Amino acid sequence: MTTGKINVSVENIFPLIKKFLYSDHEIFLRELISNATDATLKLKHLVSIGEANVELGNPMIEIKIDKEGKKLHVIDQGIGMSEDEVKKYINEVAFSGAEEFLDKYKDAGKDAGIIGHFGLGFYSSFMVADRVDIFTKSHTDADAVHWSCDGSPEFSIEKSDRTERGTEIVLHIAEDSEEFLEEGRIRELLQKYNKFMPVPIKFGTRTETLPKPEDAKEEDPAPTQEVDDIINNPTPAWTKKPSDLTDDDYKAFYRELYPMQFEEPLFHIHLNVDYPFNLTGILYFPKLNQDLANQKDRIQLYQNQVFITDNVEGIVPEFLTMLRGVIDSPDIPLNVSRSYLQADGAVKKISSYITRKVGDKLNSLFKEDRENFEKKWDDIKVVIEYGMLSEEKFFEKADSFALYPTVDGTYYTFSELQEKVKDLQTDKDDKLVLLYASDKESQHSYIEAAKGRGYEVLMMDSPIVAHLMQKLETSKEKISFARVDADHLDKLIQKEETQISKLSEEEIETLKGQVEGVLGEKSSYMVQMEAMESSASPFMITEPEFMRRMKEMQQTGGGGMFGMGNMPDMYNLVVNTNHPLVGEILNTKTSKKRTRLINQCLDLARLSKGLLKGEELTSFIHRSYDMVK
Amino acid sequence: MTTGKINVSVENIFPLIKKFLYSDHEIFLRELISNATDATLKLKHLVSIGEANVELGNPMIEIKIDKEGKKLHVIDQGIGMSEDEVKKYINEVAFSGAEEFLDKYKDAGKDAGIIGHFGLGFYSSFMVADRVDIFTKSHTDADAVHWSCDGSPEFSIEKSDRTERGTEIVLHIAEDSEEFLEEGRIRELLQKYNKFMPVPIKFGTRTETLPKPEDAKEEDPAPTQEVDDIINNPTPAWTKKPSDLTDDDYKAFYRELYPMQFEEPLFHIHLNVDYPFNLTGILYFPKLNQDLANQKDRIQLYQNQVFITDNVEGIVPEFLTMLRGVIDSPDIPLNVSRSYLQADGAVKKISSYITRKVGDKLNSLFKEDRENFEKKWDDIKVVIEYGMLSEEKFFEKADSFALYPTVDGTYYTFSELQEKVKDLQTDKDDKLVLLYASDKESQHSYIEAAKGRGYEVLMMDSPIVAHLMQKLETSKEKISFARVDADHLDKLIQKEETQISKLSEEEIETLKGQVEGVLGEKSSYMVQMEAMESSASPFMITEPEFMRRMKEMQQTGGGGMFGMGNMPDMYNLVVNTNHPLVGEILNTKTSKKRTRLINQCLDLARLSKGLLKGEELTSFIHRSYDMVK
Repeated sequence: MTTGKINVSVENIFPLIKKFLYSDHEIFLRELISNATDATLKLKHLVSIGEANVELGNPMIEIKIDKEGKKLHVIDQGIGMSEDEVKKYINEVAFSGAEEFLDKYKDAGKDAGIIGHFGLGFYSSFMVADRVDIFTKSHTDADAVHWSCDGSPEFSIEKSDRTERGTEIVLHIAEDSEEFLEEGRIRELLQKYNKFMPVPIKFGTRTETLPKPEDAKEEDPAPTQEVDDIINNPTPAWTKKPSDLTDDDYKAFYRELYPMQFEEPLFHIHLNVDYPFNLTGILYFPKLNQDLANQKDRIQLYQNQVFITDNVEGIVPEFLTMLRGVIDSPDIPLNVSRSYLQADGAVKKISSYITRKVGDKLNSLFKEDRENFEKKWDDIKVVIEYGMLSEEKFFEKADSFALYPTVDGTYYTFSELQEKVKDLQTDKDDKLVLLYASDKESQHSYIEAAKGRGYEVLMMDSPIVAHLMQKLETSKEKISFARVDADHLDKLIQKEETQISKLSEEEIETLKGQVEGVLGEKSSYMVQMEAMESSASPFMITEPEFMRRMKEMQQTGGGGMFGMGNMPDMYNLVVNTNHPLVGEILNTKTSKKRTRLINQCLDLARLSKGLLKGEELTSFIHRSYDMVK
Repeated sequence: MTTGKINVSVENIFPLIKKFLYSDHEIFLRELISNATDATLKLKHLVSIGEANVELGNPMIEIKIDKEGKKLHVIDQGIGMSEDEVKKYINEVAFSGAEEFLDKYKDAGKDAGIIGHFGLGFYSSFMVADRVDIFTKSHTDADAVHWSCDGSPEFSIEKSDRTERGTEIVLHIAEDSEEFLEEGRIRELLQKYNKFMPVPIKFGTRTETLPKPEDAKEEDPAPTQEVDDIINNPTPAWTKKPSDLTDDDYKAFYRELYPMQFEEPLFHIHLNVDYPFNLTGILYFPKLNQDLANQKDRIQLYQNQVFITDNVEGIVPEFLTMLRGVIDSPDIPLNVSRSYLQADGAVKKISSYITRKVGDKLNSLFKEDRENFEKKWDDIKVVIEYGMLSEEKFFEKADSFALYPTVDGTYYTFSELQEKVKDLQTDKDDKLVLLYASDKESQHSYIEAAKGRGYEVLMMDSPIVAHLMQKLETSKEKISFARVDADHLDKLIQKEETQISKLSEEEIETLKGQVEGVLGEKSSYMVQMEAMESSASPFMITEPEFMRRMKEMQQTGGGGMFGMGNMPDMYNLVVNTNHPLVGEILNTKTSKKRTRLINQCLDLARLSKGLLKGEELTSFIHRSYDMVK
């Protein structure tokens, strides 16, 4: 047996690094600016512990485009490199300088905010450049160095006459990457990746208007001056303490994050945890509109103030992906598969920490200012209801603040609701029946009838409400939900006492036959004869709760019973045998007149349930105009 | 100046390859099976050209799980490796054996179907294994070899007593990857990535029932036998010639691709091009339902029968991503950014080739069997209309086969439609007015009125139809679209002749005041007095085309005018001054009775337009019950 060492030949691996290191070529700029930031923060740290004896000043990073020379410059005023350091850090691919630094200055790393990760970042410049020069002067006395490489693994190195401390990277942009010589494109990248990085980044200058001198005449133009255009905010809100921020600061930061978003957020949650993982951030509850899908995935993920992605799937629980804001954590593994991410222990902890913080915030908002919370309920309920369905712990927590509004705008918690309705809405089997509507307009007549009995009618109109009711019915004791048009009121909440019928059983049978005769065999209505109050409608169409809810659950994904989403709608035609008009129908002599009466009542019942449409509605309207005349 | 060579140290790069080579760890199995396939196809090729003198047989690849030993085996009967070859191909990372082979046997590559690409694939096994063994015997006389590596860059190599030709890779699965010891998981991966690879892949055995022998008794169980479970179809339909395939073959392949899809595809398009790029594939037009977003991205992208991704964004034009099927092309660059992909010349050509082929197919379907094409129109129109909007060339091509159905189910091409309606529907400014409805039910009375005049009413109900009409109006000459409820008929298509008014101008003014008085100041209706046919409705609500369409365009993304999506709906109340009922209103003596008449007519007009809702509808119904009594 012989042994040996696997050989990674640079000729073979280099083209791969150049082409495939990152699937997105634009990343090179983020990487170079991360390196420049590290170099600056390292020097700051050395100065602070007395290991570097230099005038730090206010170091910044500068990005310059030389369009004619087809060059892009990234210049820092940081730690710089000696010739030996260049050889060590640059010539050895995948040697992470940052890691070594972190090892050496243990614990300093985190506070100093060092970004570097793989040491591969620098080489991403070859994705867009066909030659890269490095001019660098160390903060020590070492000579300045000029390193140059044309993308082959051959490099050259020589003394440089550079006198300023720090490093300048010059990319000779390749022909297929000339987009990176456009000011607009570079500005876009800086905005995307570097907007909140911790060292000021200068990109050109801009003209600033100064106040007029006191002795200026009215027609004199205001004086102006050219100032550095700093594109980033080195101390974004999430890096500060909550106690140092006002409500307005949070709102201002929201506008910084989403300049095109005109609506203000409803409230924010400041995240800040050190152990067992490191995470800071600010989440905002936005005002959501109906189009939920397009509002997802606006949360931005950062690592040490470097933008990474706006795909936080797996990190933030699904139901919170409709929130907005920023999460910054060095502890989230990157470049790994989603399935790995979801299985990762640290990520799981992060996700449940976020859930818990959101729950706590909602609870305290509810406790501290219920009126305000109620006002916001309609805007936040989808998120909360979705969370109740998908995270058991959140479901339990939400029990204290989840609200159930009535059609008249009273907001109950579940226990308040139970207390409020238990006397009137408990049925003969001791079950509490909670009535609800899904649409005030189209269910108006049913709602009014229920309110007429003193019942509370909830307004349940979220897209996933059928699933939520199903969950509440199984987790609470002896309750059930029923939509106001699921049956007539005596049946919706069945009590011991029954209404006395004005008609005999024989008369009822006759009448039923008459109605069924008019409906014809092809009718989809089940005729249901009921002795109701005489003030209730003569005819009424109901839609049984179970079937309808199963269909709804299937239509909103999952749950329900297989295939039920495709079942036709099922309706009952309830005939109120105690209504005078129904008595009239029974006693009408000519069948022609009876048919007309039944049809008119049927049309009005269908109209009330929104089922009279098309040709039938047109002919109903024609008939009605005739009746007006 | 000194020069040197950048050094990629294996200790540094190896962990990166192991962790980050692919963001999805499961890829390792695809890579190993690709290597095994290459090894098999290489041997086949050598035999076919007489350079290998072995009994080829029917070589297959076998995948075996050893759950107790925590090992996964990938075994082929291919070309095998000598010790020198192992050193060359395995010990040198990123040395692509396939590429060298392709160079040597020029042109053979394509026919032989060699897959290998980077030579990095083998090392992906270290993403899931903490030790990998290779047992291999070359097809030549060379000794068998056993190579072993524990994931450090150190390997060992020794003679092996293996006697069968080919290579066996043994992965000692790492603790965090034990999912890959589950039969279900491996079967899932094989189904996903290897279902159509060109060499048979065996994964265990299955029991097959044999026919009973003739002398068997009725109660005897049917005999069974264990057979190799071959999980792939090595010659999927797209690799065959269209002339060798029947319609049933295409349908059978659709079921192979989408086993959970019960509906049959509407038709297929077989893609096959050699130059200037290489591409084969079969696309299917599925039956689409309303939920378009969930039906995108079902097209599978393969390279030489290896599944790559089902994200074909950028490769297939956006409007065709609702199609299904397979595209197989070695010419599509992988692992590159989407923006690069979209700018890539070859990819652009592929995209426009696909568009052209789809256009040609639709055209020939229309020409060859128009009746059948019309039947399918409703299922395919969204794709075609979206294509007409987004690809100018497709818009031009579609002019000959895009259909415009009427509410009565007649299907016209645009030129047929023009010919059919030009006599009746050309207005006084010589403009052709095309009437349409978006909902047969809710616009029924308006449709009937238009049909009463002999006008054709189109059924335009696609989500993006507002945009399409806008495009047609600007690209065709002197045409415009108007929805049937956009105005009353005399105004929708204005002719020279005008109706004579039964009322005097003074009477009309009085009447207008009366109606406006009842409506009240807060009304959102503009009252519009018109002398129409006396048989038309007395009151009628219309919704001007321009505003409504702008709103619709904004709601379906883009187009329209900024902010108009949020404008309130605008309605006109058209009063037919020639209707007898309207005359009656004018002549009614008591204002109480007049108010009642106006309100009843207004309610009926609103009912007809679907605007009478909630409390107003309930009270209308109550009033109507009273009128029945």
